[in-house]
Amino acid sequence: MNLFSDALVKEACEASSVSGLSDATIGEVLLVARYLEEKTGIPFIRMDQGSPGLPINEYGILAEKQALDSGICSQYPAAEGYPPLKAAASRFVKAFIDLDISPEGCIPTTGSVAGSFSAFIACTQRIPGKDKVLFIDPGFPIQKSQLRVLGIGWRAFDVYAHRGADALRARLEAELSAGDIAAIVYSNPNNPAWICLEEEELRVIGELATRYDVVVMEDLAYFCMDYRRDLGKPFQPPFLPSVARYTDNYILMLSASKIFSYAGQRIALLCIGDDLYRRRYPVLAERYADAGIFGVTLTASIIYMITSGCTYSTQFGYARMLELACDGRLDFVADTREYALRARRMKDIFLRHGFHIVYDRDVSAEVGDGFFFSLGYGDMDGGELLCELIKYGVSSINLATTGSSRPGVRACVSRMREELYPLLDERMAAFAADHPLL
Amino acid sequence: MNLFSDALVKEACEASSVSGLSDATIGEVLLVARYLEEKTGIPFIRMDQGSPGLPINEYGILAEKQALDSGICSQYPAAEGYPPLKAAASRFVKAFIDLDISPEGCIPTTGSVAGSFSAFIACTQRIPGKDKVLFIDPGFPIQKSQLRVLGIGWRAFDVYAHRGADALRARLEAELSAGDIAAIVYSNPNNPAWICLEEEELRVIGELATRYDVVVMEDLAYFCMDYRRDLGKPFQPPFLPSVARYTDNYILMLSASKIFSYAGQRIALLCIGDDLYRRRYPVLAERYADAGIFGVTLTASIIYMITSGCTYSTQFGYARMLELACDGRLDFVADTREYALRARRMKDIFLRHGFHIVYDRDVSAEVGDGFFFSLGYGDMDGGELLCELIKYGVSSINLATTGSSRPGVRACVSRMREELYPLLDERMAAFAADHPLL
Repeated sequence: MNLFSDALVKEACEASSVSGLSDATIGEVLLVARYLEEKTGIPFIRMDQGSPGLPINEYGILAEKQALDSGICSQYPAAEGYPPLKAAASRFVKAFIDLDISPEGCIPTTGSVAGSFSAFIACTQRIPGKDKVLFIDPGFPIQKSQLRVLGIGWRAFDVYAHRGADALRARLEAELSAGDIAAIVYSNPNNPAWICLEEEELRVIGELATRYDVVVMEDLAYFCMDYRRDLGKPFQPPFLPSVARYTDNYILMLSASKIFSYAGQRIALLCIGDDLYRRRYPVLAERYADAGIFGVTLTASIIYMITSGCTYSTQFGYARMLELACDGRLDFVADTREYALRARRMKDIFLRHGFHIVYDRDVSAEVGDGFFFSLGYGDMDGGELLCELIKYGVSSINLATTGSSRPGVRACVSRMREELYPLLDERMAAFAADHPLL
Repeated sequence: MNLFSDALVKEACEASSVSGLSDATIGEVLLVARYLEEKTGIPFIRMDQGSPGLPINEYGILAEKQALDSGICSQYPAAEGYPPLKAAASRFVKAFIDLDISPEGCIPTTGSVAGSFSAFIACTQRIPGKDKVLFIDPGFPIQKSQLRVLGIGWRAFDVYAHRGADALRARLEAELSAGDIAAIVYSNPNNPAWICLEEEELRVIGELATRYDVVVMEDLAYFCMDYRRDLGKPFQPPFLPSVARYTDNYILMLSASKIFSYAGQRIALLCIGDDLYRRRYPVLAERYADAGIFGVTLTASIIYMITSGCTYSTQFGYARMLELACDGRLDFVADTREYALRARRMKDIFLRHGFHIVYDRDVSAEVGDGFFFSLGYGDMDGGELLCELIKYGVSSINLATTGSSRPGVRACVSRMREELYPLLDERMAAFAADHPLL
């Protein structure tokens, strides 16, 4: 027996101007869930939006308040970022990835969204004819929406059937040999599937990026949040796997939103490999009447023209948190491990009632527990599963909207609360009873 | 006798990688001035960059700190903005422009830079063939750089020779009748010349914008800072002149940077006229797979894809300042009037030594004193004047880089300090002695 009738869900969709619930965006699902919650008073288990579910980092707040009190925030921040933040970023990638990137290559952006938006522009403008983006999907739908804004073309493939060095190499070669790919994008750990590309896969991506002169944009929004290994000890192995070990053509995207629960303040970093930062591109020089040095053009002629720097106080906050993490005084991995606990408990409930994990394995190990997981039920397609779950008071995202070819939904654990576990169990028992598996 | 030799200025340019000082950007001039200052210990009179020269608004700071302490800043802000900020913005334009704009049409952006960048995209994509921007110059060079990033074309004309309703109408018709102009941009008061378009001129712009279906992007960065009249009394005339009285096709850009000395925090508002906000454009609907409603597409499908909202605490700060201004408890016009006093004293010194104001008049009155003024000397061209002034320890910007056809430089008063006036007088006396006017 479900909680919300078809008629009521239909009403919620109409009231929220949601025409197709099965392929709805995160924002649309959220509106429908809120409508049903407000209309009936029945609490929803909100697995839709990936907003932090932990308190904002207090060290960042303190540093922001000090910056605000200092009076400096009347002045425009430098385009290339507040120097201590740049230095802290350089130290941070050394501490947790064992990677050398100069402070000059670490550029703050108004969230990784502004970072990828700007990097897409620079990457696709630097070499004539190399003007498309390749997504290793599933992925973050906003990045494709950014290309739609800019009128940039893209291709994509679901990595599910191409895991492991050999399979991935063959699939990538098929795309890159066309010569029109400017950049490769993926997130690691992956949003939405929480899979992690492994060392040998990253090596293949890096080698091919060098061979075909493609920039790898590695989105590390869930930095070190693969809790299967303790990646949280600064300057100590194990270090975070990264494509940066295998090519010079890389840009890392380091968001503060999830690791420090700092989403509202809109701050991230682009960390550009030194070699790429310093490369000269005549086409950029001509277009922007500058020296055409990749990192400088990206900073001064592109990012600066979009936001003219990032909120000053927030740069102080981010700098402080990165410094403390490097000093071993702020353990962001431990701070966020709560998400893994929530994932484990939620997955156990779903599995008990006949669900399965869609992206269940990396090459050498079972997928870890973290911020997201992927969920399937029998052979229901993602849209159908999303719509059915809504009726039982559980909101999620259709994997199809993330470039996945697998039937299922994305579940985010961030809004889970203690009192909701028994409800989830009860509702999924009802769901299973109403949807017997053959 | 000048302070810095040709050789030393050349050295400063080389050390700062500035190839052409006469056409240097603001950032480049700033580097040269800093180099000379540090090298010699001689203080520069820095008239280059338009950064606030007054303390940051304390009410904004207080509201930001409260927001940070509340814990809300862990969460993503809504794409369309924090509701109390939207409400305050709507009330603010009523209080000071006597204009009705719904809160839904007031969208926060990461500075007006992000606002114009996004609006350029929406305006040039909404009607096929209408894809160019027209600048009423002189203007803010960054806006043209934004179009260079996006690959959008533009035309521009210097308004100097086209003041008054009839002349302006003729000049605008010549551009708009081609049918390819999507948006008209200007700032009022004007950066760099501090001229103000008058009521009859705004009427012409508005009428033609309606006739040719062009969106007017009115940059109000120096909101109510035309100190010739007291525009600072909320809900009382005189109200700020605006094109919004004469067309429905308008977007106002309201930056917090100058009026509240809030530049570092990167916050502004786009205020979209209700009629334009609600218009449907099939081409937008098709491109973004949304309803194609101008304001919604601009917010949810364009701005959201660039920064995913604005720094949350800063939205609280801006909301508080706007509310207090509407309540008559924060007089930002009085707070910034100091700039007019500085301009008057600086202009007097320059005029005494043979300089003249380049953009000296509006249609019906002499140009006012404010954040910027334009300066000429004999028949020296702008680049030459800039380079000569540098040698006397005074930095400025060549008007030619702002789209002006008049010989001269832009002077910004914001960094002027009490102890620098006698130095300026002394240096300009030396300048005049070394450059006798015929």
